[in-house]
Amino acid sequence: MRLLLPRKFSTKTLDGWAKSVQKSGKNVFVKVDNGRSHGLIQLVANKQIAQEVKVGNAIRAIGNFEKSPGSQQETEFVADQLNIIGRDENPRYEDLSADNLRKKTHLRARNSQFASFLRARSALFRETHEFFMSRDFIHIDTPKLTRNDCEGGGEVFDVVTTSAEALNGSDGIKEDAMYLSVSSQLHLEAMVSRLQRVYTLGPAFRAEKQQSHAHLSEFYMLEAEVAFVDNIDEMCSLVESYVQNMFSFLHSPKLRSELEIMNSQHLASIPLNSPFSRITYEDAVQVLTSKGSKVSAKSGLSKKNELDLVKFHDNQPVFVTHYPKNQKPFYMARTQDDTKTLSFDLLVPGVGELAGGSVREPYAEKLKERGCGIEWYLETRKRGQPPTAGFGVGFERLLQLKMVKIKNRYYVVRMITNDGSQPTPFRPAIFKEFMKLASEMFGDFGYSILKMSLSVRVVDEDVIVLRVAEGGNKYFGAVLPCVHKIDKQPMVLQTIFIGRSMRSCEKRLIKTRRDELHSALKKCTTTETRTQLLGAIQQMCGQPARIFTDEQRGDKTNS
Amino acid sequence: MRLLLPRKFSTKTLDGWAKSVQKSGKNVFVKVDNGRSHGLIQLVANKQIAQEVKVGNAIRAIGNFEKSPGSQQETEFVADQLNIIGRDENPRYEDLSADNLRKKTHLRARNSQFASFLRARSALFRETHEFFMSRDFIHIDTPKLTRNDCEGGGEVFDVVTTSAEALNGSDGIKEDAMYLSVSSQLHLEAMVSRLQRVYTLGPAFRAEKQQSHAHLSEFYMLEAEVAFVDNIDEMCSLVESYVQNMFSFLHSPKLRSELEIMNSQHLASIPLNSPFSRITYEDAVQVLTSKGSKVSAKSGLSKKNELDLVKFHDNQPVFVTHYPKNQKPFYMARTQDDTKTLSFDLLVPGVGELAGGSVREPYAEKLKERGCGIEWYLETRKRGQPPTAGFGVGFERLLQLKMVKIKNRYYVVRMITNDGSQPTPFRPAIFKEFMKLASEMFGDFGYSILKMSLSVRVVDEDVIVLRVAEGGNKYFGAVLPCVHKIDKQPMVLQTIFIGRSMRSCEKRLIKTRRDELHSALKKCTTTETRTQLLGAIQQMCGQPARIFTDEQRGDKTNS
Repeated sequence: MRLLLPRKFSTKTLDGWAKSVQKSGKNVFVKVDNGRSHGLIQLVANKQIAQEVKVGNAIRAIGNFEKSPGSQQETEFVADQLNIIGRDENPRYEDLSADNLRKKTHLRARNSQFASFLRARSALFRETHEFFMSRDFIHIDTPKLTRNDCEGGGEVFDVVTTSAEALNGSDGIKEDAMYLSVSSQLHLEAMVSRLQRVYTLGPAFRAEKQQSHAHLSEFYMLEAEVAFVDNIDEMCSLVESYVQNMFSFLHSPKLRSELEIMNSQHLASIPLNSPFSRITYEDAVQVLTSKGSKVSAKSGLSKKNELDLVKFHDNQPVFVTHYPKNQKPFYMARTQDDTKTLSFDLLVPGVGELAGGSVREPYAEKLKERGCGIEWYLETRKRGQPPTAGFGVGFERLLQLKMVKIKNRYYVVRMITNDGSQPTPFRPAIFKEFMKLASEMFGDFGYSILKMSLSVRVVDEDVIVLRVAEGGNKYFGAVLPCVHKIDKQPMVLQTIFIGRSMRSCEKRLIKTRRDELHSALKKCTTTETRTQLLGAIQQMCGQPARIFTDEQRGDKTNS
Repeated sequence: MRLLLPRKFSTKTLDGWAKSVQKSGKNVFVKVDNGRSHGLIQLVANKQIAQEVKVGNAIRAIGNFEKSPGSQQETEFVADQLNIIGRDENPRYEDLSADNLRKKTHLRARNSQFASFLRARSALFRETHEFFMSRDFIHIDTPKLTRNDCEGGGEVFDVVTTSAEALNGSDGIKEDAMYLSVSSQLHLEAMVSRLQRVYTLGPAFRAEKQQSHAHLSEFYMLEAEVAFVDNIDEMCSLVESYVQNMFSFLHSPKLRSELEIMNSQHLASIPLNSPFSRITYEDAVQVLTSKGSKVSAKSGLSKKNELDLVKFHDNQPVFVTHYPKNQKPFYMARTQDDTKTLSFDLLVPGVGELAGGSVREPYAEKLKERGCGIEWYLETRKRGQPPTAGFGVGFERLLQLKMVKIKNRYYVVRMITNDGSQPTPFRPAIFKEFMKLASEMFGDFGYSILKMSLSVRVVDEDVIVLRVAEGGNKYFGAVLPCVHKIDKQPMVLQTIFIGRSMRSCEKRLIKTRRDELHSALKKCTTTETRTQLLGAIQQMCGQPARIFTDEQRGDKTNS
């Protein structure tokens, strides 16, 4: 009997699910998903023991990992025993759309992209706790059932019980109104006065009407509170450090490979070693207005304003500080002239507000003036409370920032020069030409949209792969047929293929190249050319990913 | 400006709260609680800069740690600057009773015992995640707002929103009934079918009438689920390993000191290297019945039965397995004869049920037969679900096991023999005599209660220290004056002192001994006896803890 106690998975037993089954000679080759990473494990078994295995089966195999003779993997699991212990009526989870999986929550983990997401989320959860614990923060689980409405927005869930036992009892469950917590902040403020540095990562609940994918009824919030801090700068630095650490972690080899299979767009290359920009709300409004992005004096920055502001900062995160007092809640400390709050929001590409924080109002009288009637909260201020400051980060937004799946289109196009010569343009020249045409045809508006959504991914001989994010398709489709030269070289562009992923483009491109080589092979007359062509075909089929290697390494030599 | 980024607290700045202030010559000595551990830091400052400091003040001092000339601490913080940045109207938190602090949740962290508890809880939280993550488990945050009532007990909280915006909207918040999650198990079962090993540590909600301190409306539950497991033994081993690891962690130097200040009773010395006992429910009932502990055939083991069972196992944890099917929920797999479940509970001293788990029913038809109507849950069984098993641990109960504060009384009594000879009894004989009298005076009932609550802690010459847990006091008080012999030696017992902690007894005992020695010193006539007595006094005052050292080491030689 296998015991769970060993630290790691056993090498003698392979548990998992058959993703593909291929019979060849006396052997059966099964690609096994064991759920530990996005990679599949090749299992080899004699037909006699693996005759019955079908795609979707949950299997347990006994055997050993051995060096693989195949070129696709380094090791393979050679099974001596194989048992089928679960069958799947319909195992094609990869074909399900995200919308379908959203309705079938219970089947999500069976889809490899969702499984990757869940593994990445768990790793980020661990790293978050490591970040704070290693900085001497104490983790506090604050109550989720509460009588306070922290944000004062009224968007709380009431909690009632219909359990007859509880209703008849005098245990107080029904005595007063009870809500689901919208924020842990007030509780953390009470705890910080001794423990000095506290934080929590837990669920928060808001009964908001769903405004966008950035608003959830139930979400996870990271909240931290630090005593003996009376300024925003320290807090901004802490948030900055946290976000940079998490990004750097997501770029670590293990996590990067999980993210790659999710086909996620790396929205931003966030500076990991230099501080994020910090500007005041006043300056932010000025910048936005001067660039034509209107700001409502009443409701403050809209989501569009926030995204614009990020764009005007080279698509990098930016802290906006000192919001006007009428836009922020009662608990925030204010500037001496009592017009602005000691507050900040961190705005990031694609998401908008990722974090928000402030110095807390230290005086009970001022809190009262602003209508705060929470007696226990007021009392803390008279009981040796030092200045404190804190912040909150939407944990899902942090994930979204790195893992959001944007519907992209990948265009594979061929450059056909007017004089039949070899096309020579590098990536920047191609991008520049598209931008020039977009500006001529659609003015500033179309120009900005295409600039945000277009990226030239690969240039390989006479073929270009372009990625266009949702929203930019309309403009791209109009510009493409109008291209008649790139980098002064007269040419037109012929669309070969439009796909949904880089991988599909790659496959298509390999097929195209192979067909070309084969048709060249037919026409060729000398033995030498023939040998060269055969070598090229072999190389291409044996190492299908070669042509993308430079791109994947982020090589900039040809750009 | 101090930045938060450094990993550890700065050695140049000391932030904290003044717990005591003492002026001496030109200096002021302040004991500072900085919230990082239960120990206080001695701060020394010139009167000129520290004149105003009062107990309860939040202070920030700039200076350096230096070697302390005093004997009470190795280092002290010598302050060059000292600022008072918060004042406390009423800083005597140590005098507040636990009941008072329970009502003043927001002031809890200011009490050093509660602060210790919060630090220990946070450390155990981290260690729990480390345990599972290092064993390749994936952490999943399951939804807290749910439409399922997992346990089927009906004790769920309904969630409604009174937010007009949400009610008018068509976003579905009000469309169907919505509950607060009572358990994450069903969700984890869905996730385990690919991820293989999943767990969660998060809040669960039960609208139960409060039965005892073991039942909370909101509590934290650790739940784990493992695929490809079809037997209880593997799960028991995992639970055992987890509990042993956490205990061993709580005994690590840092945590032990936090627990000591909490004055917590170490309820059990749990075996850390050998497995816990495992018995079937059938055998458990037999053992209980044979020892006179009645078991209800209908409702199963009562809390008293559970505690009895632990007692019959040398006060050590015990697994009870294979509960009858009518006592357990629909999702548990059953034995082949369909009478028992493949389930287990872990019972521990003082708490009763700490963990519960089972193998899950693999067949959708059987789940349906037992009334399960959760469609999505049934569907998982047809979609390549391997056998799975899991368990849940009440996180508060784990803390309670180690950290519960039981109201004990410590009695220091002197043995006075009838003939003035030296008393000779060892601990077991003393305990036996009390039990014999209790049985004669109060029958089985009083006997059991006193047996559970009485423990002979120290025998030192003619003095005994006895600990009596709450509940046993009445019987102990009645038995004490009736003792007229122990181990056949005629004697009476004189009460010297009744205290609340071992420490207070120790202090009192030292005082008593010193007084004895001093009065002996007055009477003594020879120089040799005098020198011996002076030596004894010096030894006692210099090493006040000596007499308890054997006891603290758990030395059994005199028992």
